Order: sequence, then C-alpha cells, then structure tokens
Amino acid sequence: MDSINVIAMAGGDGIQSYTNNSSFQKMAIGYAKSLIQKSIVEYIQPMNPPTSVTFRVADLGCSVGPNTFIAVDNILEAVKLKYLNTNHEIPDFQVYFSDHAINDFNTLFKSLPPNREYYASGVPGSFHTRLFPRASLHIVHCSYSIHWLSQLPREITDKNSRVWNKGKIHYVGAGEEVINAYSRQHAIDFSKFLDVRAQEIVPGGLIMLILPARPNGVPHSQDPFPVLLEQLGECLMDLARKGVIDEEKVDAFNVPCYFSSPQELEQVINQNGRFNIEMMESLPKIKVPNISSIPQRVCGTIRAVTEELIKEHFGREILDEVFGLFQEKIVKALEHIRGSDFNLFMLLKLKEETYLD
Amino acid sequence: MDSINVIAMAGGDGIQSYTNNSSFQKMAIGYAKSLIQKSIVEYIQPMNPPTSVTFRVADLGCSVGPNTFIAVDNILEAVKLKYLNTNHEIPDFQVYFSDHAINDFNTLFKSLPPNREYYASGVPGSFHTRLFPRASLHIVHCSYSIHWLSQLPREITDKNSRVWNKGKIHYVGAGEEVINAYSRQHAIDFSKFLDVRAQEIVPGGLIMLILPARPNGVPHSQDPFPVLLEQLGECLMDLARKGVIDEEKVDAFNVPCYFSSPQELEQVINQNGRFNIEMMESLPKIKVPNISSIPQRVCGTIRAVTEELIKEHFGREILDEVFGLFQEKIVKALEHIRGSDFNLFMLLKLKEETYLD
Repeated sequence: MDSINVIAMAGGDGIQSYTNNSSFQKMAIGYAKSLIQKSIVEYIQPMNPPTSVTFRVADLGCSVGPNTFIAVDNILEAVKLKYLNTNHEIPDFQVYFSDHAINDFNTLFKSLPPNREYYASGVPGSFHTRLFPRASLHIVHCSYSIHWLSQLPREITDKNSRVWNKGKIHYVGAGEEVINAYSRQHAIDFSKFLDVRAQEIVPGGLIMLILPARPNGVPHSQDPFPVLLEQLGECLMDLARKGVIDEEKVDAFNVPCYFSSPQELEQVINQNGRFNIEMMESLPKIKVPNISSIPQRVCGTIRAVTEELIKEHFGREILDEVFGLFQEKIVKALEHIRGSDFNLFMLLKLKEETYLD
Repeated sequence: MDSINVIAMAGGDGIQSYTNNSSFQKMAIGYAKSLIQKSIVEYIQPMNPPTSVTFRVADLGCSVGPNTFIAVDNILEAVKLKYLNTNHEIPDFQVYFSDHAINDFNTLFKSLPPNREYYASGVPGSFHTRLFPRASLHIVHCSYSIHWLSQLPREITDKNSRVWNKGKIHYVGAGEEVINAYSRQHAIDFSKFLDVRAQEIVPGGLIMLILPARPNGVPHSQDPFPVLLEQLGECLMDLARKGVIDEEKVDAFNVPCYFSSPQELEQVINQNGRFNIEMMESLPKIKVPNISSIPQRVCGTIRAVTEELIKEHFGREILDEVFGLFQEKIVKALEHIRGSDFNLFMLLKLKEETYLD
C-alpha cells in the first residue's frame, strides 16, 4: 500500500468502468471550460517557427477517457483560436495522456477520437516523478487527480504508532492527528509535483488544475468525499463483523487521497515558489437532473475510483457485496452531509526566473 | 481484412505471447548492434542547447518487448557515447514506442525497464500514417515491421479478379501475378512510410531498418518465411477439408506481409527521393544452439506473429488445432527450404533539401 503504482481508475468500458462512471468529473471539466479559455487567451504567448513548431500538452492522471479527450479538446480549441486571432501559424499539437503504468492504456488508445487534430501519445508513470524532458511542455492539465497521494502517511498504517488508523479507511472520524498526517503528505506530494513540473514546463508555461477541494474553514466531517469514504469504511467493517474479511485487513487499508482547502494549496504553492497563482476559482455546484439517481451515481463513481485499491487489498470477490452495502448506506449518508461539492479551478504559471536557475 | 488496424503481435506475457516467442527477432537486433553503433558514430551530429535539449527516438512496430527495450538501449548507449566523445552536454532522451492501437500497450508499459534513462511514451497508430509532429524525431528505428502491409492488395481478395488468391493465404505457389500484387502494395506502403517519416524527422535525421528480406535473384519459393506461411495455409486448408472451417473463409484470408529484395527496396527509396541509403548490409545468419528445438521455436514465432490475424478471421477456437498441425508440417517443410534466413540492416538519412521543401 505504500507503493506509488497502485492507483488506477476501473479500466475497460464495462458497467463499472471509470469510462461509464465519471459523469461528475465530466461536469466539472465542462464547468471549467470558460476558465480554460480565459487562461489561454490571457496567458499563452503564440510563437512562430522555428521557436515553436510543436505545441505540447499533457493531461496527468488521464485515466481511460472520455473525460480526458473533452479536456484536451477544450484546451486545443482555445489555443488554436489564440494563434489564429494573433495571426500566428498554427503549430503541430502533441498531446501526452499520462497515468500510472497500471492504467488501462489499451482502452484509452482504442477510444481516441478518430478525427483528432493532434499527435497522441501515452506516458506511463506517477506524476509525482519526472515524466517529460526538460522545458518540453506548454500546458499541463490535471483534473481530479492531484488529491491522490504518492503514498500513505507512514504513521497511520503503523500498529505501534499512536496515529494508527484502526478501523478506519480514511480520516473523517479518525482524529486530528490522522488528518494532519494526510495533510502533511499531501503538502509534500503537491510540492514535489510542482518541482518536477517546473522542470518539464517551458518558461511561462501553464498548469491547469481541476480538483475536488474543501472550502476554507469547513471541517473535514462536512466535506462530502471523505464522509463518503468514511461510510465505505463502515461497510468494510460490517463485512469484517460478518467474518467475510479480516478486521486486521481493514485496519491496514487506507485510501490515499486528501481534500485540501484553497488556503492549504496556496500555502504549498507559495512555499514552493516556482509558480504564480494566476487564477483560483470555485466551479459551479454540480447539478444532477434526476435527483433520485444520485445515490446510484455516487456509488458508481466511488466504486470506479476505489475498486482497484480494494481489489488489490481484499480481493475481487468482495467488490459486489461491499458496494451493495455502500449503496444502501449512501442514501442515509447523503442526508447527513451538510457541505456540498466544492471544485476548484487553478491556473499556475511557471515563473520565468525559476526556469533560469 | 483491409483495415490497417488489425495487425498486432500476440500480447500479454504468456506461453504463446510475442514476448516469449520473438527470440529470432531478438538475435537480429543483437547482430545489428555494431551497425547501429557505427551509424551513430558516423551520422549523428551532437548539438548543444538550446538547439537540442531533447533527443527523440521512435521505435515503430515496437510490439510488447523485450526486443524494443534492447534496441532502444543499443541506440541510446551509442548516442550518449557520441555526445560524450565530442564533449557535448548529454541531452534528455525521449523514446516513443509505437504500434497499432490494438497492440498490448498495457503489457509494454508494465515491463518498461525500471532503471531506464529516458522518458518513455507510447504512440498508438499505423506507421503508414503520420504519428509525430514535424521535424521532431532524431532517430527512427523499425525492426521486423516494415514487411507488414497497410492492407491486402485488393485484387487478391476479389472473387471476380483473375488474381483471386483462392486456397492460399500468401503468395508462394500462387502465381506471378499474386506476387506482383503483393510487391506493388509493399512499394506503395514503403514509399508512404518514407514520405511521412520525412516530415517527422529532423534535417539529417536517421531511419534504421532491420527487416527480413530475400536475397536478390532468389525466388520467393526459396524464401523461408513465405514458404512457412504457405505451409500454414495448407494447415488451414486441411481444417477446411475436415469441415472445421469453411473453405471460403480460407479463400478470403491472406497474410498482409511481403518480403522484399534489396533491389526492390533500393528502387522504392530512390524513386521516393527523400532519403539517402547510407548503409545496407545483410546480418549474420541466425544461429540456434539447439537444432532439435528449431521446429518448435519456428512454430512459436509464426504463431505469435499471425495468431491475432487468424483469431480475428476464423475465431479463437481453431488456434491450437491449426498450430498443432503446423508444428508437424514444419519438420518436413524445413527440410525442403533451400534458402536460409536473410536479414537486412539499412540506414537511411533524410536529405537536407527534402526538409526544406
């Protein structure tokens, strides 16, 4: 569980796949479109050959589509317009779809838009490490990904630590110190992310982040995602009580993601010092047309993003049972969640002097 | 069968996989190593930043490894030495592993060398089309791939054509006109390959080809690969006679590959006009330490490269039976083949003036 290679969304294109269970994330990408256009209009400086022949975009944590294709199209459409409107020659576009090596790239590649106007490639690896040559990317896009940690905070899985997260799989209801351990790990990871991107991005290049976050001052216990993960943990404990799985296995299992506040994110970016925050805006609340479908959709979403982790730790055979229980629990849980979804769009621009170091 | 997307080597890492049945191709890559080193010493011009920050290499038709990793290592080792010996700063290396979208990239990505000194990425698509931005590649490597056609020659699958290739799956024993149809298609495809590479390669950049070929003047009926494919066709006809498959299905099935002679290749390259042939050498004959293992290894190799095609056309269920028959036939066939394996190494260099058009 402390490997950085185990996180992947559910592959394939079946009923439980991320492909078919990522409509919330898709909506957030849709809501961010106008901000992405604005970012490009204001911050991309078109260049003519030979300075710029290829314009390179990377989507980090791309998973299997279709969301990544929509995000990329939104970006390229705006870049092309910017080039056209400033009378520059349209460059060749190269798009790197990146995710862990265990991501289902086969499905991703087979579902690439056939009429795409860019050269597509896949890049396997963790975005907490270097993935690209220096100064080779113009725009890095990263949607619903940066909340994943490179590893679990060590202390929470250590039986002898007083921060051992017994009987829980995440931090809600687990005490302040567990939350702090997660928060510290996220700060380390996000700063590392910025360090490596600073090497890969061209001077003046951009990072566009879309992420599920927690409003400043709102307690974690009112943040929908961790509350849902707490409920999922309860379901695993139910299975342990029924003897289906071992309670010690639940003790040893934790979901490696953290939902930051804008304040926390700003602090990391400022301390890191390599990027300027050019934009930081919350996205509109996600609207679901058919309210009665929410529990099922939420369950599908949480399953698509956590089932690989659960499968890896507990085995495939418990999946249907645990998510069956979870769907029942969600109805009640959703009534108790006081906060609503809070998605952030952030635009970071590489400081020119950083590149020159 | 006339789609360009159906050719892939057997994926995964199981007993019938290309990974475990490509030792002949691996030997050819080993034999070519010294020629690759020589090519790089003589024809790569190291450049300092900012002209060159990233050195980009593509392996086209990479399949699933490990051969592609060996080939890439051979190239990068030589490039690094060249940079070191000429007192240039070692650039970042970016390597593109490219094959059809149906190639098993998941297996490829999971088996990437963990200590690689390059940024890896996968590029899905046919090498008969543009895959990369213009002027972005320094070296294109293509091993045991260029003999695959983009499509079957139309006339051989047309029942009403006098070149209809009834009862055969390849061109040996099928008459001169079938051979000519294959040869014409290969010339079209290879010229197209050169056209698109000329756009993707930097001025003075290189193409390194390793390919199974046929010595000038040697008739196709003495060329081992097509003779083996003829035998595989016989096995399919045996199954048709036994009623296991429909004879019309065999009539409609043809393997889309052609084994050129150096003369034919030279003619295409010269007519195409974009590249100079800097080297063209035959590789040493492949030596197999244990001669009695040859039939089994040959069968494994032919199965790994053709089973996806056969599965697509006839269904998975006939695979074991047809390759069981094939292994029996090979023993006899190998006695009759008078020619031996003939592998070529070719080094092509992009003409400077071509890039300027």
